[in-house]
Amino acid sequence: METVAENKCFGGVQGVYSHASKATGCDMTFGLFLPEEARDGPVPVLWYLSGLTCTHENAMVKAGAQGWAAEQGIALVFPDTSPRGEGVADDDGYDLGQGAGFYVNATQDPWKPHFQMWDYVAEELPALVTSEFAIDAERQAITGHSMGGHGALTLAMGRKGQYRSVSAFSPICHPTASDWGRKQLKAYLGTDEAAWARHDAALMMRDVGFDGPMLVDTGTSDQFIDLLKPEALAEAANARRQEATLRLQKGYDHSYFFVSSFMEDHIAFHAEALYA
Amino acid sequence: METVAENKCFGGVQGVYSHASKATGCDMTFGLFLPEEARDGPVPVLWYLSGLTCTHENAMVKAGAQGWAAEQGIALVFPDTSPRGEGVADDDGYDLGQGAGFYVNATQDPWKPHFQMWDYVAEELPALVTSEFAIDAERQAITGHSMGGHGALTLAMGRKGQYRSVSAFSPICHPTASDWGRKQLKAYLGTDEAAWARHDAALMMRDVGFDGPMLVDTGTSDQFIDLLKPEALAEAANARRQEATLRLQKGYDHSYFFVSSFMEDHIAFHAEALYA
Repeated sequence: METVAENKCFGGVQGVYSHASKATGCDMTFGLFLPEEARDGPVPVLWYLSGLTCTHENAMVKAGAQGWAAEQGIALVFPDTSPRGEGVADDDGYDLGQGAGFYVNATQDPWKPHFQMWDYVAEELPALVTSEFAIDAERQAITGHSMGGHGALTLAMGRKGQYRSVSAFSPICHPTASDWGRKQLKAYLGTDEAAWARHDAALMMRDVGFDGPMLVDTGTSDQFIDLLKPEALAEAANARRQEATLRLQKGYDHSYFFVSSFMEDHIAFHAEALYA
Repeated sequence: METVAENKCFGGVQGVYSHASKATGCDMTFGLFLPEEARDGPVPVLWYLSGLTCTHENAMVKAGAQGWAAEQGIALVFPDTSPRGEGVADDDGYDLGQGAGFYVNATQDPWKPHFQMWDYVAEELPALVTSEFAIDAERQAITGHSMGGHGALTLAMGRKGQYRSVSAFSPICHPTASDWGRKQLKAYLGTDEAAWARHDAALMMRDVGFDGPMLVDTGTSDQFIDLLKPEALAEAANARRQEATLRLQKGYDHSYFFVSSFMEDHIAFHAEALYA
């Protein structure tokens, strides 16, 4: 593992690190905020998964999360959104290939050799950060924005017991029925739609749900709301009697101005679960 | 004036606007955060001046200021750091020309026709925003980072009565004795160093001081601290018995991770003066 940068931030350290990933078969870069408390022993961790076109950096500089994480003594990890590099398959579209991993393990060529983001985010990177840093593997929570909100919700429901709480900002809630989803799930997972279901938060909610609290915020003026389909998740969560707070925030859009506006709420929500 | 973007943010609106500037003779773009309270009448305003290479956008997305401004009911203006465009003089260096206006009125060619950032920030843009938005011209305060900290300090001391309070993050404190200053002041103002003095915070502190509170933060691990020379401002402020809080923050560097870490303090500091 290589240190790309470390900057003191809210009493802790905002680092950027790169490492050779076994899951994705390429070098991966991630951001990690460690609060001051990590000097004295392992702290809980909140995973933040980013959206289409993002790298590890977007949320790290724009979401305003570090101040609240510092206040709660929680680490933040900002993984990249896909494998990257010259030898890694890509597509001309912004919504497929590099920058658009969709948090799945691809089974189809040309994506299969590197696009293993589910395993990378759920297994390899947690193993790395909990061994290299003062992070408590037993206290993990997960959040994300847009495609990253989809990743957070599906990982939380698909990896039983790994995360104590899950939240999302403007998540893609029903990708098997959306142009933000069908194209990518077909490319990465093939034409058999049965394989897509465990990467659809609304379907996973129907199927297995989440054993813990859930918080989802979506802006009523989100320019992509027809692609996100929050109503599908809301319907499924209500039908299941899932413990959840699903909010529509008046006038907010899909931007980081929206994410940062509600970051304090989300981190306080996760802190309650992580320190329970 | 043209609206480039408006995003709801912390209950208010983060806008970006452009307008034809008389002072700089070109189109200028600025960011403006208006808190919710502005719906009911004019609110106080904090000017944020950015550093070398920045546009109106950097602080707007990275400083984490809107949340605290919303809490205090204060507007934020993020001006650009120089005139821009094809017809505007420029230099190959990152530290001269476009992106490096240094908040002076240039008297030398080729800079003179457009590089009138002192007048733009102190006169033209305040007149525009107080006439177009619910902003109270009688309650202004000013802050900035690096070159923008230099601008904030020199404008506050050079424009008596305009700003109730002044603060700065890692400001260039003594440009007439620094490689961040001598090159630019010579280019914009000519070889007569007498004309440089009113654009040097340490010299202005000796000469006129500031009639109000001052807060300055600099990181002890700032990689540019030898160019900033906070000791020159500290010496002058102490010699003058200026009301001031001058802080050296252990381990912090020059980045926005530093700025965002202390933004809450700075906005609370200005709020006290603006609501006095």
